[in-house]
Amino acid sequence: MTTTVSIREVGPRDGLQNEAPVPAEAKVQLLDALSRTGVGRIEAVSFVHPKAIPQMADADEVWAKCRHDPGVRYSALIPNTRGAQRALAAGFREIEVVVSASDTHNRRNLNRSTDESLDDITQLIPLVHEAGATLEVIVATSFGCPFEGDIDPDRVAGIVARVRADGADRIAFGDTTGMATPRRVRDLLTAVRPDLLHFHNTRGTGLANILTALDLGVTEFDASVGGLGGCPYAPGASGNVATEEVVHMLHDMGIETGIDLDLLLEAADLAERLVGRPLPSGVLRAGPRTRLSAH
Amino acid sequence: MTTTVSIREVGPRDGLQNEAPVPAEAKVQLLDALSRTGVGRIEAVSFVHPKAIPQMADADEVWAKCRHDPGVRYSALIPNTRGAQRALAAGFREIEVVVSASDTHNRRNLNRSTDESLDDITQLIPLVHEAGATLEVIVATSFGCPFEGDIDPDRVAGIVARVRADGADRIAFGDTTGMATPRRVRDLLTAVRPDLLHFHNTRGTGLANILTALDLGVTEFDASVGGLGGCPYAPGASGNVATEEVVHMLHDMGIETGIDLDLLLEAADLAERLVGRPLPSGVLRAGPRTRLSAH
Repeated sequence: MTTTVSIREVGPRDGLQNEAPVPAEAKVQLLDALSRTGVGRIEAVSFVHPKAIPQMADADEVWAKCRHDPGVRYSALIPNTRGAQRALAAGFREIEVVVSASDTHNRRNLNRSTDESLDDITQLIPLVHEAGATLEVIVATSFGCPFEGDIDPDRVAGIVARVRADGADRIAFGDTTGMATPRRVRDLLTAVRPDLLHFHNTRGTGLANILTALDLGVTEFDASVGGLGGCPYAPGASGNVATEEVVHMLHDMGIETGIDLDLLLEAADLAERLVGRPLPSGVLRAGPRTRLSAH
Repeated sequence: MTTTVSIREVGPRDGLQNEAPVPAEAKVQLLDALSRTGVGRIEAVSFVHPKAIPQMADADEVWAKCRHDPGVRYSALIPNTRGAQRALAAGFREIEVVVSASDTHNRRNLNRSTDESLDDITQLIPLVHEAGATLEVIVATSFGCPFEGDIDPDRVAGIVARVRADGADRIAFGDTTGMATPRRVRDLLTAVRPDLLHFHNTRGTGLANILTALDLGVTEFDASVGGLGGCPYAPGASGNVATEEVVHMLHDMGIETGIDLDLLLEAADLAERLVGRPLPSGVLRAGPRTRLSAH
């Protein structure tokens, strides 16, 4: 098994996008706290239409005001060419775009078919590359769709083959509504391998999924501080795996992440205060297993 | 990997013992709902001093009123000879007793050293056997103690060797305050093997721990409907793994439990109403991954 895992912290974008709106200043505070934890990558903002996702309307302001740590790779999510232009203009060199493996989910989420979104991505890739940036394609509902049910791994593999042929730099599989399980992770990863995995903990299997993926050789994972966020387009969806729970388990296994767990817990505590509700993170509640009680 | 797992449902005892007291009638309702799910074993009550644990003061009444399903093995937890006598008189043929691997935790929990508790167990075993019953020894804090920290697997192995030599019928390892992780499960089980494992989900690793234990050949697990319960003697401790989350993951892997997940979810819903607080179960919140949304 690997001795190092790369975590991409998605709380500031994926997390906050699915909470009640917080002011730009709060987002900057959270981003800066996370930049100090030693995490290698942060999904910082998304450049989406403010009417579609008002939570991210201040992306330019947040990105202008937050700390840009040279040790951190920051990325931005975009839905289309307009978003990519904004992200590139803002200086991002790592861009992410989403397409759903489920046609029904893609239509709900993006108002077009999966194939139409793939055509858009074909156009997008050269635009991003010409600006000297990279494009990651996140295949949402890879482990199941709340409308269509199980997604055939071959369909995911087909999408991956197409976007790789088009020049996509990286592929992520998204467990958009928490339908991944150890069995589904094994089934899909046996058919096709992503660069990075994004799990939710909707049905309790978040860390079990990561354990399974580690066993299969995956070494890059998304996680969200405090377990912030979910998916607004999917009924019953709840939060991303909590970064501190992932890091706590990995460090205990002797796997390095570069993250200082104490600083991460401070960031999780801040996230909880910023959103004003208890976050679903056991390690935030109970502390690390190494933090003992007085006799 | 195994194709069958045996679940012991501990919600009525371990779960309710760590919630605000509910009336006997509510306990009977929950026990009866669980007996109908197809689960093979239920930890029904404990026979403890009512001043120590008022939640279980009505154990005799509950056991007299609840359904005794011939397809279910019911067990009772006891702290001492007096409790064993009450359990045997009530008709139980499966008795459980707890000893902590951590001396500090044992003194907090039972007001005696681990060795003194082991001496008690030596005396208890013939008494239980003479009544035609079996005794299971649950080794608490096997994966770590909130006061002492890590517990040497050799210490747990020594306790197991002693009680097996004394004639204990079964051994369980308890993750009393949720300090088990996949790594600790692997470390301990490499040194000594129990018959059954009891995990908490305090730090998010509940299902990852079970996955690891399955990989190492363990096929018996405790779980608590809805994730009811915790440990009143340990700061920061929170609930047991939720039975429906365990069953949901296992069935998805093609591992049989004999449990009807829909009936189990009805019992979890009842448990939530009986205790009057939201229970920490993702599958109870979001439903099984196979339950789709309308388009």
